Amino acid sequence: MKPFFKVQSVARVREHAEAMGPLEAEVVPLAEAPGRTLADPVEASADLPGFERATMDGFALRSADTFGASESSPGYLRLVGEVCMGEAPSLRVGPGECASIGTGGMLPEGTDAVIMVEHTRPAGDALVEVCRPVPPRGNVLGAADDAAQGDLLMPAGQRLRAQDVGLLAALGRDEVPVVRRPRVAIISTGDEVVPVERSPRPGQVRDVNTHTLCAQVYAAGGLPLALGLVRDDPDALEAAVTRGLERSDILVLSGGSSMGARDLTVEVFQSFPGAHLLVHGVSVAPGKPFIWVRAEAGELLGLPGQVTSCMISFHLFVEPLMERLLGRPARSFVRFGRREAVLSRDLPSAQGREEYVRVRLSETAAGAVAEPLFGKSGLIRTLTQSHGLVRVEASCEGLDKGSPVTVLLYQ
Amino acid sequence: MKPFFKVQSVARVREHAEAMGPLEAEVVPLAEAPGRTLADPVEASADLPGFERATMDGFALRSADTFGASESSPGYLRLVGEVCMGEAPSLRVGPGECASIGTGGMLPEGTDAVIMVEHTRPAGDALVEVCRPVPPRGNVLGAADDAAQGDLLMPAGQRLRAQDVGLLAALGRDEVPVVRRPRVAIISTGDEVVPVERSPRPGQVRDVNTHTLCAQVYAAGGLPLALGLVRDDPDALEAAVTRGLERSDILVLSGGSSMGARDLTVEVFQSFPGAHLLVHGVSVAPGKPFIWVRAEAGELLGLPGQVTSCMISFHLFVEPLMERLLGRPARSFVRFGRREAVLSRDLPSAQGREEYVRVRLSETAAGAVAEPLFGKSGLIRTLTQSHGLVRVEASCEGLDKGSPVTVLLYQ
Repeated sequence: MKPFFKVQSVARVREHAEAMGPLEAEVVPLAEAPGRTLADPVEASADLPGFERATMDGFALRSADTFGASESSPGYLRLVGEVCMGEAPSLRVGPGECASIGTGGMLPEGTDAVIMVEHTRPAGDALVEVCRPVPPRGNVLGAADDAAQGDLLMPAGQRLRAQDVGLLAALGRDEVPVVRRPRVAIISTGDEVVPVERSPRPGQVRDVNTHTLCAQVYAAGGLPLALGLVRDDPDALEAAVTRGLERSDILVLSGGSSMGARDLTVEVFQSFPGAHLLVHGVSVAPGKPFIWVRAEAGELLGLPGQVTSCMISFHLFVEPLMERLLGRPARSFVRFGRREAVLSRDLPSAQGREEYVRVRLSETAAGAVAEPLFGKSGLIRTLTQSHGLVRVEASCEGLDKGSPVTVLLYQ
Repeated sequence: MKPFFKVQSVARVREHAEAMGPLEAEVVPLAEAPGRTLADPVEASADLPGFERATMDGFALRSADTFGASESSPGYLRLVGEVCMGEAPSLRVGPGECASIGTGGMLPEGTDAVIMVEHTRPAGDALVEVCRPVPPRGNVLGAADDAAQGDLLMPAGQRLRAQDVGLLAALGRDEVPVVRRPRVAIISTGDEVVPVERSPRPGQVRDVNTHTLCAQVYAAGGLPLALGLVRDDPDALEAAVTRGLERSDILVLSGGSSMGARDLTVEVFQSFPGAHLLVHGVSVAPGKPFIWVRAEAGELLGLPGQVTSCMISFHLFVEPLMERLLGRPARSFVRFGRREAVLSRDLPSAQGREEYVRVRLSETAAGAVAEPLFGKSGLIRTLTQSHGLVRVEASCEGLDKGSPVTVLLYQ
């Protein structure tokens, strides 16, 4: 007996994800931090750079000594020494004096600016001719210009880009607490599916979803755990799901697009301790047959078996869950680019469900044009030959040729 | 004696990169293929999926038998059997007959379409009532719909996304020839720079560039080889460059922003066998002091030491070179998103040089607004606090508040 279960909106499914919290932290060396997610906020432990630095090669001086200086009426300053790179200068610079300094050097006591060497001329023994004025702090980085001690520099949940890793290096953080990568177990089902290394007989096809899902999990910051192919048989499925749950935070099962197989997936998922059916069908195309059962031991997700539906369902449903486990809002398509374009033709759409249409982009004199590709969702070529997806809202009956659209770009 | 050397445009620098060819191929297992670059074009070795498949649960039949069928005037077909998943059906379906079939099943001989189970009703013993017509090939994937044998599916130089890996799986390619990752040796210089684990004394700062460059090289598809800090001393530099060249395709040295240090870099680079100075200064800000020496043993690149300049110079000059070594055109910012926005304020710019300005994006009712951040290029916070870069062309004297701009978005 099948229980009655209402098809939900994509937004409603994401709300189920919002309830989940981040995974625990682990500490990694700075070299392994790029692409990982900060577990704790980062504060400045000290001022950065911590001292006043020259941003140009030239002479450190008192800016007041250069007021009114010009080519026709230069000033003259006594050169009292040189600032060595990487050392606190021991010399003191008084009024009417200067010291030579290189880019990155520390300003000596008594100075508040640096004049570029190009705006000076040597003028005999230990004398420098100054041809321009320089304002206070001119060509100088302040001691706390990059950060003042105690500043919040990065929030928890931030994905670390190259520059963020650079900032951590500047702070002396050679180890970084990051959120553990979500582990995602992947099972493919379907009695017609054979592993990639096997030659399919007539009626058989090779397993595509294991490979696309592994690549997607990895790109989304997770660790894929491919459990391979499982036959559409309750005992085999239950054993595979048990094995997957032991070693993962999320289990993703693809396949079972036929009604019988879908019923079997729900049945097996619901047999696990504490199982609670959260989602059974979503008003979206592709992605309608999505199943989500929350069990004590983890999240059990059933994706459609059609290769295109499976890939798009990953972004719609698995990615937001992974984002939450990493401590971020439950969003989809987070690593996709965005591009404004106009439609090359009418795009009909069924009202009452969200739709994601593959499009090919081309550039014209009038701007970018998005051409919908209407292949069936069992075809992977519509994904390899398209550049991105256009979302058609559930309330929309379709879009006319020439309508402006935002294309979600594959990276 | 310094040789005269003319400052070049960014476009001219990229032309030097265009002359370089791709690195050799290596074979990796399919699981390691995501993100790698195809070394050879991929052709379809057979038709895909290779047989006609149902895209819906229902009944395989001759479409002609359904012409004119409706709710009020249904047709009746004799049910002669069931198609088992993963097998070539042995049954033959004649006129006026049908066979039950699941999504993904192989069409039996004699049929050309599938009617969805929702458009049928059981009608007693082995009889199916058909309430709608279905066209020829309706709910059917053709045997060569995904690819026909011999089709060129992907060109050499393609970066493999999840769907491309899926297509390779469908073709049975469990091993993939990809271009070897470019090896990039990284040296930081500057007598004021200390390693990240050391507490800087007054006048010293920690090494940021090694860490940002490693992250950038990795994200660009290369293998970073960090050689650490080297003092501004000719012998030490030469030894480090020699060591780096032995194990890399490209050597990147950051630092030496002061004139003396820059001269030292050029001198050391030019001391290598077959050295040829390609670039010494570029009309771009930041990134002006870029140095490129081509030696017999590899490409020697000198980037500015200022952290922001170093990062942007990587994208301008190192990334296009890596793209070429991977077999693609010499482009910059290839992994950046693009976003149209308007400027929040006037943006002055010096004519005669390209400029890259860090901007922060905010969303308003009228669209995205880009706010220029004018920090000095020694500050990393302008990178961590901005969302991307706006390019101002060399011929442009500046942009007015409200001007439309394309923001290059960090990923």
